[in-house]
Amino acid sequence: MTKPRLKIIPLGGLSEIGKNMMMMEYENDIIVIDAGFMFPEEEMLGIDLVIPDISYLLENKEKIRGIIITHGHDDHIGALPYVLPQFNVPVYSTKLTQGLISVKLKEGKALSKANLKTIHPGGHFTLGKFKIEFFPVCHSIPDAVGLIIHTPVGTIVHSGDFKIDYTPVSGKPTDLSRLAQLGAQGVLLLLADSTYAELPGYTPSERVVSETLDHVIANASGRVIITTFSSLISRIQQVIDAAAKHQRRVFIIGRSMINTSHMALKLGYLNDKEGVLAHLDELKGMPHHKIIFATTGSQGEPTSALVRMANRDHRQVHILRGDTVVISATPVPGNEALINRTVDNLFKQGAQVLYSKLAQVHVHGHASQEELKLLLNLVKPRFFMPIHGEYRHLSLHSKLAQSVGIPRENIFVLEDGDILELNPQAGKITGKITSGNVYVDGLSVGDIGSVVLRNRRMLSRDGIVVVIITVNKQTGKLISRPDIVSRGFVDTRESKDMLEESRDLVVRTLDHSGTRPAEWSLVNDKVRDTLNRFYYEQTKRRPMILPFMVKV
Amino acid sequence: MTKPRLKIIPLGGLSEIGKNMMMMEYENDIIVIDAGFMFPEEEMLGIDLVIPDISYLLENKEKIRGIIITHGHDDHIGALPYVLPQFNVPVYSTKLTQGLISVKLKEGKALSKANLKTIHPGGHFTLGKFKIEFFPVCHSIPDAVGLIIHTPVGTIVHSGDFKIDYTPVSGKPTDLSRLAQLGAQGVLLLLADSTYAELPGYTPSERVVSETLDHVIANASGRVIITTFSSLISRIQQVIDAAAKHQRRVFIIGRSMINTSHMALKLGYLNDKEGVLAHLDELKGMPHHKIIFATTGSQGEPTSALVRMANRDHRQVHILRGDTVVISATPVPGNEALINRTVDNLFKQGAQVLYSKLAQVHVHGHASQEELKLLLNLVKPRFFMPIHGEYRHLSLHSKLAQSVGIPRENIFVLEDGDILELNPQAGKITGKITSGNVYVDGLSVGDIGSVVLRNRRMLSRDGIVVVIITVNKQTGKLISRPDIVSRGFVDTRESKDMLEESRDLVVRTLDHSGTRPAEWSLVNDKVRDTLNRFYYEQTKRRPMILPFMVKV
Repeated sequence: MTKPRLKIIPLGGLSEIGKNMMMMEYENDIIVIDAGFMFPEEEMLGIDLVIPDISYLLENKEKIRGIIITHGHDDHIGALPYVLPQFNVPVYSTKLTQGLISVKLKEGKALSKANLKTIHPGGHFTLGKFKIEFFPVCHSIPDAVGLIIHTPVGTIVHSGDFKIDYTPVSGKPTDLSRLAQLGAQGVLLLLADSTYAELPGYTPSERVVSETLDHVIANASGRVIITTFSSLISRIQQVIDAAAKHQRRVFIIGRSMINTSHMALKLGYLNDKEGVLAHLDELKGMPHHKIIFATTGSQGEPTSALVRMANRDHRQVHILRGDTVVISATPVPGNEALINRTVDNLFKQGAQVLYSKLAQVHVHGHASQEELKLLLNLVKPRFFMPIHGEYRHLSLHSKLAQSVGIPRENIFVLEDGDILELNPQAGKITGKITSGNVYVDGLSVGDIGSVVLRNRRMLSRDGIVVVIITVNKQTGKLISRPDIVSRGFVDTRESKDMLEESRDLVVRTLDHSGTRPAEWSLVNDKVRDTLNRFYYEQTKRRPMILPFMVKV
Repeated sequence: MTKPRLKIIPLGGLSEIGKNMMMMEYENDIIVIDAGFMFPEEEMLGIDLVIPDISYLLENKEKIRGIIITHGHDDHIGALPYVLPQFNVPVYSTKLTQGLISVKLKEGKALSKANLKTIHPGGHFTLGKFKIEFFPVCHSIPDAVGLIIHTPVGTIVHSGDFKIDYTPVSGKPTDLSRLAQLGAQGVLLLLADSTYAELPGYTPSERVVSETLDHVIANASGRVIITTFSSLISRIQQVIDAAAKHQRRVFIIGRSMINTSHMALKLGYLNDKEGVLAHLDELKGMPHHKIIFATTGSQGEPTSALVRMANRDHRQVHILRGDTVVISATPVPGNEALINRTVDNLFKQGAQVLYSKLAQVHVHGHASQEELKLLLNLVKPRFFMPIHGEYRHLSLHSKLAQSVGIPRENIFVLEDGDILELNPQAGKITGKITSGNVYVDGLSVGDIGSVVLRNRRMLSRDGIVVVIITVNKQTGKLISRPDIVSRGFVDTRESKDMLEESRDLVVRTLDHSGTRPAEWSLVNDKVRDTLNRFYYEQTKRRPMILPFMVKV
């Protein structure tokens, strides 16, 4: 067809959890939705963060009308400090989200030039050909929204991260009436959160956790230590409420939780009517049954408050026999080992520990299968595209959509970079743009590529052997016996004889091959091959071998 | 007290899952129970396996009367190839366990000298002052046993790894009557499996999986691919039975599963009455609804059959649209990411995938809380020691024991190396022997220590920079500009200027400090400090810096 179509391109967050980012393009207008980072996977050695590839956006810079953020979690805002300075466009979000974005941008020294616009849930704004409306959704952070996007080809609903909780602790329930109304008017495309598409049934309400916390605090004779995500403001509210009920004070420990709480209090998203929040200098002499600590460390992060307490190296608070620790979170995949170690250490210090395997101390913030079906039923979209999830989540979400009557050919399971082109009658994946992981390591963004990572992996496995060969630059003759230095390969004292033998082997290799200047380029390869074979025979290890020729 | 006491010392498997091994000592007799390995944790870079420290056993070699193995899993037999050659003692086990031990010892070239003794479940034997009886337990491998050990101070019951399954698929149910009888006669000490002490309720019977498999195979229109642990012989039996029922043939793929199945068939632990097992050369032309593959790869192991199929690089079998894949296992902690990636790839190839989150395709082999209480109730031990588990499992198991009436002071929660001394009236932890992890890396056992691992960790994070400084050995003057070679640090092309600048910096550092022979020892430190600071300022990375001085 010749008429301009709407293009929808996921830049991150599809086929991989985290670093959520997508864009929509119609003629000369582009809008960007979310800009998150993800933490590196195990094989991304030494990498600090991973952000989406934005090459396509950079090439189409002048078309970008704005960045829209659905909520304030790192997997939706964390790439902003890296991305925003490259585009001079406004960022649209709700009030709390904006507060969290400011904190991020400030840390990344990108706040001063940022143009942040507040939109209330229910509010509207226009970006080029796109008319956008925020609708409230319930998620594990207040002030989260989904998007209703009116485009020239039809209406698009973007769920954001959501669940359906009729009795949320903070924030509003997902606005089902508005969605039903839209469904009746006709929705072209629904984009919906797939994170928990594996889970049957309904996600329980946050209230369930209130009951557990109430029970735990009522029955604890000593101090209670509750750890959760620092952004989980509703959980902190639950702790404050439970403390008020049981005449305890709450001490917040850990920089990020202190920052978030201060901001949430200031903006009115956290409420301490009875004044239970306390400062650490009030701690001295307070009876144990009056104390609750709220801390970071639910993921076993080595520098977090809880982990320091568990290891007895926190400056202010040590675990005491009789403490009750509640880990009010579930492990983010990959963090299991760190969390388990923390729990073990807490038990060793004599604490009682409650965690998700033992009690309902956490509920997550995403819709399970029945809620996903409910959303599909209300919105009744013509086309459907599962978002936010690894490939298996997207596949399962696509099956759910089929089960409620959306034809298979109207469902688009994309991967990052795929271009979905849409008109009112049809949709098609028409191509792919450059996409993938951009690594942040220290100060640099994007300089780490596959070669550096491959080298780090090789070094991590069997270490390195450096061979220094000093030759006369005229004659090519060895001036001295080659030197060998190793790190991470073997115990150099125990393996002294073997390393000495390998020096002799280098001498013999060079004698055989001669080292006329014309052949110098071959010497390194020969030394590498010979030592590779020798070390493998001797140790069954394959260190990186780095020969270096000094010509004097 | 002056009377000789019984000493019980865990050498591995307490406070850490895996590498199970313990010993009991009375006067001049030592018996060893199990000798397992564990897979390395994430930070043990490049390590192949971890086995227990056996220094104490080596010092008391002449006292050792035998090694007793409870069942044939790697975390109970895997250290034998390393341990057994150091002691000339017999190994006692049931028939299938012996078969699996033979395979292990053969791989480790330690079979020929081994003295392997078969004891049937229910059988007895005497080792010095210890009289040992095997009693059948139900676990996720047939022919598993627990131990009844009559010692001069009283009777000890060791549960092995167990669950209570009244309708096991292979093997016998745990012998509850014998345990009840012993309980009536009086048991001094119970040692019991804590692996699943976190789980409330009862572990379901293996039969549950039969029903799921039956349902899946009945409803699959194409090929069915079932993956599980290669040692899970009862699961393979379930697959054979379901195939027979639904007129399908079973192709076993993957070396370790083929080896185990052959042996289990030969020894009578696997039964293919209807001849459904088939060879791959019978595959050609067979209709898809007649085919079941049983494969390795349930943990996402990169070289396993299933992972190769998922990545389209298996020589014989590719995934086809319409295949149903059943992952009949739960992730071993740490393997989640690999398994998820495999599932994603299978979905991408068009397969339907069923795994533990979606259907009851696996039950595990360890007792949950109610079963643990039942065991405690039947055995009624005077003293109790939880075994096989991380510290949190041991703590929770200890609380279960208290809840059924064992006084807290009669419960001993040990860590590896702790010495529990016991007489008929009392028990006490009296000291600690050398214990911990011994690393197997390639051919060497135990040469890798903390220095090598620390170096590997450092290398894995930010790579290495080698600095070669060539000086005149008389004058100490630089002969040429220093050379710098880096690996895994930065992209060497993009960072060419910075690396060049750092060479100049080394020149300036050496000029400043002078390099008289007397000061040579200081040069390396100075270069290291200068470059460390420079690179950190430039990149916020801290590569390992390895200066090397060539004196000519």
